[in-house]
Amino acid sequence: MQTVNIGILGLGTVGGGTAQVLRDNAAEIARRLGRNVSVFMVSTRNVGKAFKVCPDALFTTDPFEVVAHPDVDIVVELFGGSETAKDLVLQAIENGKHVVTANKKLLAEHGNEIFALAAKKNVMVHFEAAVAGGIPIIKALREGMSANRIKSVAGIINGTSNFILTQMREQGQSFADALKLAQSLGYAEADPTFDIEGHDAGHKITIMSALAFGTPVNFGACYLEGISRLESRDIKYAEELGYRIKLLGITRQTEAGIELRVHPTLIPECRLLASVEGVMNAVRVDADMVGETLYYGAGAGALPTASAVVADIIDISRMIGADTANRVPYLAFRADNVREQPLLPMDDIVSSYYLRVRAADRAGVLGGIANLLAEQGISIEALIQKAVLDDNQAEIVILTHSTVERNIKAAINAINAHECVSAPVVMIRMESLAQTR
Amino acid sequence: MQTVNIGILGLGTVGGGTAQVLRDNAAEIARRLGRNVSVFMVSTRNVGKAFKVCPDALFTTDPFEVVAHPDVDIVVELFGGSETAKDLVLQAIENGKHVVTANKKLLAEHGNEIFALAAKKNVMVHFEAAVAGGIPIIKALREGMSANRIKSVAGIINGTSNFILTQMREQGQSFADALKLAQSLGYAEADPTFDIEGHDAGHKITIMSALAFGTPVNFGACYLEGISRLESRDIKYAEELGYRIKLLGITRQTEAGIELRVHPTLIPECRLLASVEGVMNAVRVDADMVGETLYYGAGAGALPTASAVVADIIDISRMIGADTANRVPYLAFRADNVREQPLLPMDDIVSSYYLRVRAADRAGVLGGIANLLAEQGISIEALIQKAVLDDNQAEIVILTHSTVERNIKAAINAINAHECVSAPVVMIRMESLAQTR
Repeated sequence: MQTVNIGILGLGTVGGGTAQVLRDNAAEIARRLGRNVSVFMVSTRNVGKAFKVCPDALFTTDPFEVVAHPDVDIVVELFGGSETAKDLVLQAIENGKHVVTANKKLLAEHGNEIFALAAKKNVMVHFEAAVAGGIPIIKALREGMSANRIKSVAGIINGTSNFILTQMREQGQSFADALKLAQSLGYAEADPTFDIEGHDAGHKITIMSALAFGTPVNFGACYLEGISRLESRDIKYAEELGYRIKLLGITRQTEAGIELRVHPTLIPECRLLASVEGVMNAVRVDADMVGETLYYGAGAGALPTASAVVADIIDISRMIGADTANRVPYLAFRADNVREQPLLPMDDIVSSYYLRVRAADRAGVLGGIANLLAEQGISIEALIQKAVLDDNQAEIVILTHSTVERNIKAAINAINAHECVSAPVVMIRMESLAQTR
Repeated sequence: MQTVNIGILGLGTVGGGTAQVLRDNAAEIARRLGRNVSVFMVSTRNVGKAFKVCPDALFTTDPFEVVAHPDVDIVVELFGGSETAKDLVLQAIENGKHVVTANKKLLAEHGNEIFALAAKKNVMVHFEAAVAGGIPIIKALREGMSANRIKSVAGIINGTSNFILTQMREQGQSFADALKLAQSLGYAEADPTFDIEGHDAGHKITIMSALAFGTPVNFGACYLEGISRLESRDIKYAEELGYRIKLLGITRQTEAGIELRVHPTLIPECRLLASVEGVMNAVRVDADMVGETLYYGAGAGALPTASAVVADIIDISRMIGADTANRVPYLAFRADNVREQPLLPMDDIVSSYYLRVRAADRAGVLGGIANLLAEQGISIEALIQKAVLDDNQAEIVILTHSTVERNIKAAINAINAHECVSAPVVMIRMESLAQTR
């Protein structure tokens, strides 16, 4: 039986998991693939771990030795970050290696360059593990939905944030306390910025947007708003109104251009996405022929992520020797058909909104605020006035109907300037996630 | 650009949808595939419809002309049934055509013969649409999970039954009334046996079982129990206890063999599967490395099913000209590695159970029943005694802990023989669907 030689760059959590999956399920994989997959070489600073999980591999502390080794067929980049990783991946491609990577940052920021070189050097680059861990969402978007024009993708794609939001809702914890718990459980880094401010979700939705709509990756155009300023009162008010707040990555094809954004979002509690709790991930795809489909699973963790890495290794191994025309294109669309499309500025997106206004509890205030919304052509779907606070203040929670973001911002500016309003308006976007077929 | 010629057998709901998808999304498909897909020939008795959806195709009333036409590359079998369909598919394969089919009955009953001939004639056979309509679950099982040993698959894979169960729960309708509504909405056939007695779900779980565990298809060994005897009171009692009743197809690898069964099942209401309502489908896969993943979407309908058919057409079209070794095996595992495994008789499965007992409302009856369970080594997880009925009768609802089905049957026989028990015990199996990693 033919053997495919793997070179793994980085033997951390996912690298170790990958070696473990390839070892523990070697027989099952060979039963499917008809080829053996061997961890041939590994770059790591932890030789002890390497001995444990892949004792037969060559070890090196220099990852560039792996990408240069003539006997390596597939380079698995689990190095992380984007600068050295980029050099390693480009070097691997230059050397004619196929590449599997779980590096969302690398692909969202440098994917176009990487795919261009890969096309030139005629190698495969797979990245199932870069989005939503073990969920085969890249394959679903790239192959499962290939008969469709995809209309939108919306996902809970950062487990850290979803864990924090679940804690805030279920336990009534503050953001700070929930974050501390996430850190103590190993779900959040010491510096959690990347997860909680939406960067990680932004990288993932950027990749899915390119796959869905056949555009180059364009992370620079992705709007990022995290969960660090969310207050548990908003989660509670949303729940009273029948909604959950989730950090969503959203991308949508509209006539005017593509929406690409990450932000906390109110979604109706009856939607499946609303029931995705803790560190789990889920991605909802709306497409013209199939309608709504949803994919759920573990978005992180050594073995779930390794499951996706190894599925990519198997896919590539199976296609070694096939013609380029037989391959699924890197970004679902053939390179000559990948086209720039305008990305909508946030002012131009259409959404409905949750607003929380703190104002003096005085006759006429409510009407005044409603008028300021009406002046921007914004109609109100629901309004509740919440328990009076200190100093004769009340909180007014408003759900609006759909409007252009520019208008809601103008209305918010006007409300903030109202003499009875005592704190800046809190605004959270809403998505109905309704079936559109 | 190269053109791939499709021959469609049967221009009914899915056939019409397939032609529509290929027409309406032709540009998008070519952008992905780099080849044109043309509906070259169609067999139909409805030439009017054919003119409308694929005016450029050749028409014939004889499907055998399609499978024999030298210019047809891929035969799309949407004929339905299994006898003529089998002849057509075998003939197509014999003639060297690749095949796409949505025919779950055909594959569950004759898949082994079909795949054997296909291997001999070196053609591809794809069948994404045969299970769960537009959800790309075949691809997920066959490719997305390829790094895993799959442990179990459980799915809501019959929309008709799920619609009826949803109506019974949400509206308190009887089975008969819910079925009538389903028929009036076109969700159920005039003769609904195939859907409501579990045959359709059985075909689908049989196919998924083979894909998951690398065995031949073996529909004859699938246990089938439908929903026609379900009473709305059981749905209500289940709900009171925190459960929903769903018709599940279940297959599980155990040390003693493979479980393969379809039956109404209590599942905890907190599981995502419990929230899958109406005609929607969802499949939950539990695998050793990735853990739990779930796939949700439309399980039927012209366009969702056509979405899967056309995805298969695209996959095959892309692989025309590639070597056999480059293909994904028909049943996920390479033919020489597909192995018979023992299928567990129902008496040997392990499950927990919901029991409803009607008995005289008399002191000591409850204890007597509990003793009869204890005699079989069955412990009780929950027990509620329900409102007294006519004639001084009470209903006792019992949830048991896990036990071997043989034991629960023995206990039920003993309970039925109890002097105070006035009607046969109602038994419904339960599944916790808990994460096993």
